Amino acid sequence: MPAEVKSLNEECGVFGVWGDPHAAEVTHLGLHTLQHRGQEGAGIVGKTAAGLRRHYGFGLVSEVFAQPESLTQLRGTAALGHVRYATAGGRILENIQPLLFRFTDEAIALAHNGNLTNAITLRAQLEAEGAIFQSTSDTEVLMHLLRRSPQPTFKAQLKDALNQVHGGFAFELLTETALYAAVDPNGFRPLVVGQRPDGGLIVCSETAALNAVGATYLRDVQPGQLVTITDDGMTVEAYTTRTQLAVCSMEFVYFARPDSEIHGVNVYQARVKMGEKLAKEQPANGDIVVGVPNSSLSAAIGYARASGLPYELGLVKSQYVARTFIQPTQALREKSVRMKLSAVRAVVAGKRVVLVDDSIVRGTTAIQLVQLLKDAGAKEVHLRIASPPLRFPCFYGIDIQTTKELFAANYSIAEMKAKLGVDSLGFLSVQGLEDSVALNTTAPNRGLCVAYFTGVYPTELDDYTSNLQRELSHLSINVKEVSA
Amino acid sequence: MPAEVKSLNEECGVFGVWGDPHAAEVTHLGLHTLQHRGQEGAGIVGKTAAGLRRHYGFGLVSEVFAQPESLTQLRGTAALGHVRYATAGGRILENIQPLLFRFTDEAIALAHNGNLTNAITLRAQLEAEGAIFQSTSDTEVLMHLLRRSPQPTFKAQLKDALNQVHGGFAFELLTETALYAAVDPNGFRPLVVGQRPDGGLIVCSETAALNAVGATYLRDVQPGQLVTITDDGMTVEAYTTRTQLAVCSMEFVYFARPDSEIHGVNVYQARVKMGEKLAKEQPANGDIVVGVPNSSLSAAIGYARASGLPYELGLVKSQYVARTFIQPTQALREKSVRMKLSAVRAVVAGKRVVLVDDSIVRGTTAIQLVQLLKDAGAKEVHLRIASPPLRFPCFYGIDIQTTKELFAANYSIAEMKAKLGVDSLGFLSVQGLEDSVALNTTAPNRGLCVAYFTGVYPTELDDYTSNLQRELSHLSINVKEVSA
Amino acid sequence: MPAEVKSLNEECGVFGVWGDPHAAEVTHLGLHTLQHRGQEGAGIVGKTAAGLRRHYGFGLVSEVFAQPESLTQLRGTAALGHVRYATAGGRILENIQPLLFRFTDEAIALAHNGNLTNAITLRAQLEAEGAIFQSTSDTEVLMHLLRRSPQPTFKAQLKDALNQVHGGFAFELLTETALYAAVDPNGFRPLVVGQRPDGGLIVCSETAALNAVGATYLRDVQPGQLVTITDDGMTVEAYTTRTQLAVCSMEFVYFARPDSEIHGVNVYQARVKMGEKLAKEQPANGDIVVGVPNSSLSAAIGYARASGLPYELGLVKSQYVARTFIQPTQALREKSVRMKLSAVRAVVAGKRVVLVDDSIVRGTTAIQLVQLLKDAGAKEVHLRIASPPLRFPCFYGIDIQTTKELFAANYSIAEMKAKLGVDSLGFLSVQGLEDSVALNTTAPNRGLCVAYFTGVYPTELDDYTSNLQRELSHLSINVKEVSA
Amino acid sequence: MPAEVKSLNEECGVFGVWGDPHAAEVTHLGLHTLQHRGQEGAGIVGKTAAGLRRHYGFGLVSEVFAQPESLTQLRGTAALGHVRYATAGGRILENIQPLLFRFTDEAIALAHNGNLTNAITLRAQLEAEGAIFQSTSDTEVLMHLLRRSPQPTFKAQLKDALNQVHGGFAFELLTETALYAAVDPNGFRPLVVGQRPDGGLIVCSETAALNAVGATYLRDVQPGQLVTITDDGMTVEAYTTRTQLAVCSMEFVYFARPDSEIHGVNVYQARVKMGEKLAKEQPANGDIVVGVPNSSLSAAIGYARASGLPYELGLVKSQYVARTFIQPTQALREKSVRMKLSAVRAVVAGKRVVLVDDSIVRGTTAIQLVQLLKDAGAKEVHLRIASPPLRFPCFYGIDIQTTKELFAANYSIAEMKAKLGVDSLGFLSVQGLEDSVALNTTAPNRGLCVAYFTGVYPTELDDYTSNLQRELSHLSINVKEVSA
Repeated sequence: MPAEVKSLNEECGVFGVWGDPHAAEVTHLGLHTLQHRGQEGAGIVGKTAAGLRRHYGFGLVSEVFAQPESLTQLRGTAALGHVRYATAGGRILENIQPLLFRFTDEAIALAHNGNLTNAITLRAQLEAEGAIFQSTSDTEVLMHLLRRSPQPTFKAQLKDALNQVHGGFAFELLTETALYAAVDPNGFRPLVVGQRPDGGLIVCSETAALNAVGATYLRDVQPGQLVTITDDGMTVEAYTTRTQLAVCSMEFVYFARPDSEIHGVNVYQARVKMGEKLAKEQPANGDIVVGVPNSSLSAAIGYARASGLPYELGLVKSQYVARTFIQPTQALREKSVRMKLSAVRAVVAGKRVVLVDDSIVRGTTAIQLVQLLKDAGAKEVHLRIASPPLRFPCFYGIDIQTTKELFAANYSIAEMKAKLGVDSLGFLSVQGLEDSVALNTTAPNRGLCVAYFTGVYPTELDDYTSNLQRELSHLSINVKEVSA
Repeated sequence: MPAEVKSLNEECGVFGVWGDPHAAEVTHLGLHTLQHRGQEGAGIVGKTAAGLRRHYGFGLVSEVFAQPESLTQLRGTAALGHVRYATAGGRILENIQPLLFRFTDEAIALAHNGNLTNAITLRAQLEAEGAIFQSTSDTEVLMHLLRRSPQPTFKAQLKDALNQVHGGFAFELLTETALYAAVDPNGFRPLVVGQRPDGGLIVCSETAALNAVGATYLRDVQPGQLVTITDDGMTVEAYTTRTQLAVCSMEFVYFARPDSEIHGVNVYQARVKMGEKLAKEQPANGDIVVGVPNSSLSAAIGYARASGLPYELGLVKSQYVARTFIQPTQALREKSVRMKLSAVRAVVAGKRVVLVDDSIVRGTTAIQLVQLLKDAGAKEVHLRIASPPLRFPCFYGIDIQTTKELFAANYSIAEMKAKLGVDSLGFLSVQGLEDSVALNTTAPNRGLCVAYFTGVYPTELDDYTSNLQRELSHLSINVKEVSA
Repeated sequence: MPAEVKSLNEECGVFGVWGDPHAAEVTHLGLHTLQHRGQEGAGIVGKTAAGLRRHYGFGLVSEVFAQPESLTQLRGTAALGHVRYATAGGRILENIQPLLFRFTDEAIALAHNGNLTNAITLRAQLEAEGAIFQSTSDTEVLMHLLRRSPQPTFKAQLKDALNQVHGGFAFELLTETALYAAVDPNGFRPLVVGQRPDGGLIVCSETAALNAVGATYLRDVQPGQLVTITDDGMTVEAYTTRTQLAVCSMEFVYFARPDSEIHGVNVYQARVKMGEKLAKEQPANGDIVVGVPNSSLSAAIGYARASGLPYELGLVKSQYVARTFIQPTQALREKSVRMKLSAVRAVVAGKRVVLVDDSIVRGTTAIQLVQLLKDAGAKEVHLRIASPPLRFPCFYGIDIQTTKELFAANYSIAEMKAKLGVDSLGFLSVQGLEDSVALNTTAPNRGLCVAYFTGVYPTELDDYTSNLQRELSHLSINVKEVSA
Repeated sequence: MPAEVKSLNEECGVFGVWGDPHAAEVTHLGLHTLQHRGQEGAGIVGKTAAGLRRHYGFGLVSEVFAQPESLTQLRGTAALGHVRYATAGGRILENIQPLLFRFTDEAIALAHNGNLTNAITLRAQLEAEGAIFQSTSDTEVLMHLLRRSPQPTFKAQLKDALNQVHGGFAFELLTETALYAAVDPNGFRPLVVGQRPDGGLIVCSETAALNAVGATYLRDVQPGQLVTITDDGMTVEAYTTRTQLAVCSMEFVYFARPDSEIHGVNVYQARVKMGEKLAKEQPANGDIVVGVPNSSLSAAIGYARASGLPYELGLVKSQYVARTFIQPTQALREKSVRMKLSAVRAVVAGKRVVLVDDSIVRGTTAIQLVQLLKDAGAKEVHLRIASPPLRFPCFYGIDIQTTKELFAANYSIAEMKAKLGVDSLGFLSVQGLEDSVALNTTAPNRGLCVAYFTGVYPTELDDYTSNLQRELSHLSINVKEVSA
């Protein structure tokens, strides 16, 4: 199952900058670097001499900003950008972020990465009070809460609103006087602060975007923190003290760029360690180690290194195909595997191939990939997954909202092995995953959220509680089993 | 001043249909017929099996709906469409109508032609109570009032809201269960009801759109009326009894199609009569009568008929240029006159030309047009305008919001004559205009609004009162004078 | 049958300029003015500092040159432009003109209006000698003949080639050193020379384009003439002396703009006279005279004037629809009549309408138009056609290549009257047409080509001879009959 | 110097199929797989029921064929496709291939990969005889030669023409009765034959495209061979016997896909061996080995394997940027390096990095890449190039037409080391390259063309001879030197 062809969707990337003479251009480049976090749509709001201006649309950053004017009209000293993949809410233009709210006396832009667990309840309450939403996304709830807050100042209203929303979130707000950024009390979604050589301050989803725009890393926004940046500088404060670190482990496994650091841990190196741990936990009688390009190459290197088997590029990925995520149907998704990946016959023919992938979601593409190797003459295929079996939904911002489609939630390891047609199958253990990332923390699960593997969620689930219970009642898989 | 190149903007056309198996297609064709009422943008909301769906964008109907899918996705048994030219609010996609409001439990589409005089005040009040607007147009105010109304039913809430907005308006609302249409208490903006052969009921801006879709005219929506159409049929009721007919006279002079009837009066015939009256009030020593194509040809025919002078097509209009309105700057507007109109030298050379135009707004294009005729050898040009001098702003939906740009508000007839370079200049009188239209009514001004000619407004002006007073204080033109 | 919705296609307009600092822009504006002569595609070749450069494509001039760069890249002191409607050859990009031939040591642009009667024979001969054509149009033949001519100079080669092609043509060629223009020995297709205030010389299809770019008319290019324009000025010479004027009468009837003069005769005034003659030849018991907008309004004015009946605008044409010609199928053509034209019920209801159209081609749209008037309540419809019945194909550049589709070639006047559903039907006589145009000439048919009405062709027909004979053998209509 | 951001352009990929019910779709997928061979434009000619039809344009295959109709209109049982990067000839639409020649009695499509060394001479001769070229590319010469050949049959004419053109070429021609394919006498450019499960025969540039469409490899087209495929099957014959194998070595070094085999040698494995040889020839005191993604990863794996140093992914390539080749200017090319590649700070900081790249062209991007690593904290950078220094132009189809831009042609190894800012620099030797590929052959240079490294060309250079001599006279670099 190739990482780039799996149906596991990060929902967003955010990038805000304040106090930079090239704010719009910097944001454009930053979004480009965060493109892997969402390909459905993109948008930038620029703080221009004429106030906040927005350009947005469906497609990649390069498509939405294909015309130079689309960017030059946003020029100013601050900007906020967003790349989106839909989690909650449908494919309508109104959902492309940043949302821009134009009030009689001011304008506010809002961008969000994550998922709010109580958005449905809050929206229903707000609508009952006369509120009209312009999007169908959960994001907009925050703005209504803010505008209805009885607090005396904008910042106090924002804190008030942040304390009412639950779940995983990294919010950024841009007004004509400040850039605000806040992370949920568990720090599910990453957010980092950096600084450009000319002083401009940046808050964005990943450090890779800081590097791309020549900015220096300053800090990770911690759980429950609100960052405020104005012409007077940056302040960081807690909007709540009820925090507990639980960084989304899938950021390390699959989502984040290998050249990013999250809470000080480099993603590439964490993946290499996952591969090393996997080799120790799940050794294989193979001749060569092959990773699924591109996201599983790191784990494959680790597996090869720890096992002593030669590392080979037995699969080739086309340079000219983007992630399948933009293709809506399952049928198209399956068809496109062979357009994206091909086996190097000379490498795999007659070999016992240890195939390393970072994760399995639906299993459909993994089945095709194994077939691809067998068609190319592989004698055996030993599939090793550098993360535990994905068995439970995520409610904090990853697009796994039901167990129905999850391969590992519906089949035992032995059944999966049979369906995949592999000669052996092994997953990394939860403990192995936690040790590989090794966040230096005393928090549960070493500061990671591993709920999709264990079914144990760090927070109340609000709107989703009943759904989860119904799903779990149907689940009879032994969640400890990791190999066959 | 060619009608098609003047800067007098009708702001909208609306077209709703209920109970028709081809609702989306019918609406598409209807909007196409109403295209003259707005070229900035267009949109249609269709009541589909999957609920209300919207497609909209900047440009002409043919541009917005260039892809077949854009229309087929809207197929169902009811639809609401809109063509827009901006009056209040800027050129942002959020302002393209119909607005579509998606609530947790329902969706409502809203389309509007007109201008609300108390929208600014109402919006400020609503925002202070926490309301968030998704557009910058005055239209949206109605929805917020409706949603916050304490009334027990949707229709009661709508009536409540309609009684709070002032000005000129023709509103249509589409829900999954009904189509609603309402006209302001003065009937400034036209709205008619018709029926398709298969029973579908239509409410739209002009009867020409009824004809285009094969529908039979049923009635004009009267001032203060609310029309409700459901699967059970149509009801018409008064949401207010404080009404007084004052149909926008510019609909007859310039805006409406010649093949439309407004309150029973055919627009083409009204224009011919304006030309006839003009010939009697303002005779000219000319050899031929030439109208500015295309909107002034009717009045020119009337002038020729009453004066006995030969009617000639001395000006030719290019088939391949749309109205200038879509071009933003004054510079472009002027340049484009010669791309649109040309003189027939063989017709006008050596002749005393009586040039008939329907109105003068800024005067800039009229100046060029006179020059065009002189360049082609016209010996004399006698300009006759088939409406009174435009000297006051309109607050009910025509884009004349300031007297600064109005030629006739800043110069006397003699000054205009000199600036235009014409040999004589004459306007139709207000009385002549009223008698030409001859609405069969006992209302003031025979049921017409002639405020842009007289400065006497049929309603309070709310948000605009102070502005108007300031402007009028600068105005020293004799508003009775009509020729030189 | 509305002029703008009939399937009678002019195939091209040409516009060349030499010695003008704004050559590309002037050509762009000129083509825009000639847009009525072809809407399938457009192109301009500019003589730039970097040599001849071309931009071309399918669609209207405004569509092909939608991006400013498309024009600015062509800037220089000379240019050649073309608007095309397909006669010979299919809808492939290679056929869009000007054709640009890039040789090792030079480049030549070629544009053409007309049709060559011996192109098929010549092409077969040339291909047998190894020639490779890049288009499927007849135009390209000229270039191959030129390049293979044994003559010593470019001009001598061009004359050599011009003497080998037969039929109707107005050619323009642009090289880096000169602009050439030539008209066929009968002058079927119009071509005029004018001069810009700054000295630039223009050769184009119609005088209206000269007016549009502020140029003064100098002369019509006469049959058999070759015009050469270089930095040293203009020379005019005869490439053949075997000439006989036979201007395409359909230019006067329908194709040309009313503000153009052809060989000194204004098109609008010729049409008014056709209407006047028609009224005398074919009087009608009517109440009002209505012309089909826009091309038949001139004739209707003439008819009304001569008959004394009131002239009314009983039909309205939408401003927002281009000619149907761009729509390929007959089905679409018919459907679009009601999108383009509508009747003014208040004008025609209960009236005996004298409907004046300039010509009838297939008859299908005329049938719909009569129905439109009857649906709007017309008591009687008396159709009067301001040209004789079209019964024979044209081989000189009008897209009537077969009699099969010609209404008047397949039915008697009485049959047509029945099929059209009109109360009477009358055509202008050939003599009436000739007298209306009144070219001051001693040539046959007063210098007009009336072959499509009479079947008598001014030249040999070469490739088309056998086809014509076969068609004529099936034709049993009395070609003298003009009314019923 | 990242492989994907270097200015070394393969000029084309070709893909023809005969006898397949999904010919157009198969060709589309095949071209997609060959996209790396050219991104300027793409085209497909399909043999449809209505004859040969073409669709083509600028851009990637996915862009040119963005609309489903663009492909469905080409459906039939045979097709010929092409992806292009410009070598000879400019960026005009006429140069996009396959060229389609429409004759009176037949049509022929022509596609070409390579460069003809005597095209200029041949074209001048042909033009002197009256030939008119529709493109400015060398490809078209073949068709003119063919059409002017006195031979009695098409195939004999084709052989005649093939014997007159010199240089490197892989030609494919499609007619309504056959698909032809031919390779130059040295086999510079690759061409392979395969078969689809349903019998359809394919001739294309690389075996990877065979795999992508589910076809089985049959054979490489050998130097001087002509393959003819009709409904009666395939014949292979020699059009010349004066052949000598000299496969372009840059196909192995950089151009071809790693999953392709050329004359039996897998490209990935050849690259791994180049890396291994490089490690032995040019060892380095490093801590880690990093390859430039993606094309140099294979060589880096080989280097790491042979040196025993750990292989790390120290550079990350963005998934969302295509090759720079589509960007025209040097300025843009440089700017885009950081948009495409970023260093993994945690991996390289404090390390002595052995950076492996496949080749150096201009050196500009290599300089930036070294800087990227140093900025990320690399203590030392030891650059190892898995091919010999590129010092001479290629005239057989790679876009190196002058030594002026070649880094290694203008500087000694020591000078390059200084300019690059690396701590050491080493290239693979020519012998090492030849041994790595190890084509099993007795031909000179083991069957490879290594002229760009040695200046010794396997053929006469015709039109380019004098240029080369002039360039070489300025070259004073020691071509044996490979490290510093």
